[in-house]
Amino acid sequence: MILPTAEIVCLGNELLIGVTVNTNGTFMGEKLTQLGYEVRRITCIRDDLELASAFFKEAFLRKPDVIVVSGGLGPTYDDIQMEVLGAALAVPLIENNQALQQLETYYERRNLGLTKERRKMALFPEGATILSNSVGGAPGCHIEHEGMDIFSVPGVPPEMKDILLNHIIPILRAKVDNNLYELKFQLLNCIESELAPHIQTVKTYYPDLYIKSHPANKAKGGIVIHISGYGETAEKSVSKARKELQVLFKKEKPSIEIKEIKE
Amino acid sequence: MILPTAEIVCLGNELLIGVTVNTNGTFMGEKLTQLGYEVRRITCIRDDLELASAFFKEAFLRKPDVIVVSGGLGPTYDDIQMEVLGAALAVPLIENNQALQQLETYYERRNLGLTKERRKMALFPEGATILSNSVGGAPGCHIEHEGMDIFSVPGVPPEMKDILLNHIIPILRAKVDNNLYELKFQLLNCIESELAPHIQTVKTYYPDLYIKSHPANKAKGGIVIHISGYGETAEKSVSKARKELQVLFKKEKPSIEIKEIKE
Repeated sequence: MILPTAEIVCLGNELLIGVTVNTNGTFMGEKLTQLGYEVRRITCIRDDLELASAFFKEAFLRKPDVIVVSGGLGPTYDDIQMEVLGAALAVPLIENNQALQQLETYYERRNLGLTKERRKMALFPEGATILSNSVGGAPGCHIEHEGMDIFSVPGVPPEMKDILLNHIIPILRAKVDNNLYELKFQLLNCIESELAPHIQTVKTYYPDLYIKSHPANKAKGGIVIHISGYGETAEKSVSKARKELQVLFKKEKPSIEIKEIKE
Repeated sequence: MILPTAEIVCLGNELLIGVTVNTNGTFMGEKLTQLGYEVRRITCIRDDLELASAFFKEAFLRKPDVIVVSGGLGPTYDDIQMEVLGAALAVPLIENNQALQQLETYYERRNLGLTKERRKMALFPEGATILSNSVGGAPGCHIEHEGMDIFSVPGVPPEMKDILLNHIIPILRAKVDNNLYELKFQLLNCIESELAPHIQTVKTYYPDLYIKSHPANKAKGGIVIHISGYGETAEKSVSKARKELQVLFKKEKPSIEIKEIKE
């Protein structure tokens, strides 16, 4: 099954200097994967107009079906996502009336006026559609460009989640809904290199499935096996692959212990 | 001050599909930043020979001084970092004697022999220098290519940290040691857009400093201000910038509360 492709871009120096762990990228990657996208890259880039717009020009040439960009939509001098996208798309930034109204309402409720810094959050590349933010100030947007869907969300995690789940996922679900099926189980009393040849064998029987072993974290111990697939037959083939793996693992090492993972 | 540049690359589908949060990227970003590198990108890419080697060919053209690559050094069929680097560098993979001995010793201690899968971890691009792993099986390596230093580390966090801290950082410290000085403090009873114009003002006085506001996480509340700089005068100018910011913030809103951050 050939999946549509996606890239995730997270803008913000804090992601590159060790201040902030990029949990946004993981969350967005999971949601896009569940929908049926192959997430090809998650890239963290700096708040630098030249470097960041060069990045996007390259990314546009790769023509992923979807690009989701988080971060850099706020009121500070280094919140430059829209400048970056405008430069990369070669499109001017325009004050968006809908965004301006949303910002006015947002700050009025807090008894605050629209300063220059707050008003900046209403600037969007010409042609963008606003995605409203029901958690914070800065709206996101949707830009269609040469067959790609580009989505902008803030970097503050609850605001990113709000716009992703309430606006972006519904737009994408109308285009792609591949029905991911996945399962994970844990193996104790073994090491990854003992399992490796058997995983490779079963993978050749099920080339369309994703089958991967991960050393579990120290507290949990052992190895986690993750199997997933897309489409109506995925549940059946994932379960079959699991059974075949278990038979081979037990034959390799009868003392291996299989444990269910409760999430 | 013009800093040498670095890129971090994290290989592994698990980073793109929502299974694993990329804490490795954050850790490596912090260590390289502290040493005095400008980390320009952290990119997560898939275990796909074609996509990943295309990524590295592009990255080599950007000529960062340093590239650190984590993940894909293990024994499983999809651990392909060396194949990827070999393809991107157009250099054959060669069984490295030093690596082979380290692997033999590692598995002998566990009463295990060198299977084909374990032996694979001794294959390195021709010309690579081995970096031994004192925590797990797979050694890392150092490749010098067209003026760039390329370092390979495993994706398992304790093994990545072992090789990074014991081998890579010492190699780089001999080249670059810019003496980062940084401080953070917290502001309560304010929002980011109230601070934005004052941060911009002080930033113009200290163009070489990094000054950034971050909304603190919900449990902590408020805004965190992060100021840092490099070189012998950094401590003095960071402290002065902090004082000037505090004066402006207090003038803007006398009820702002300043709190130290204990880490």
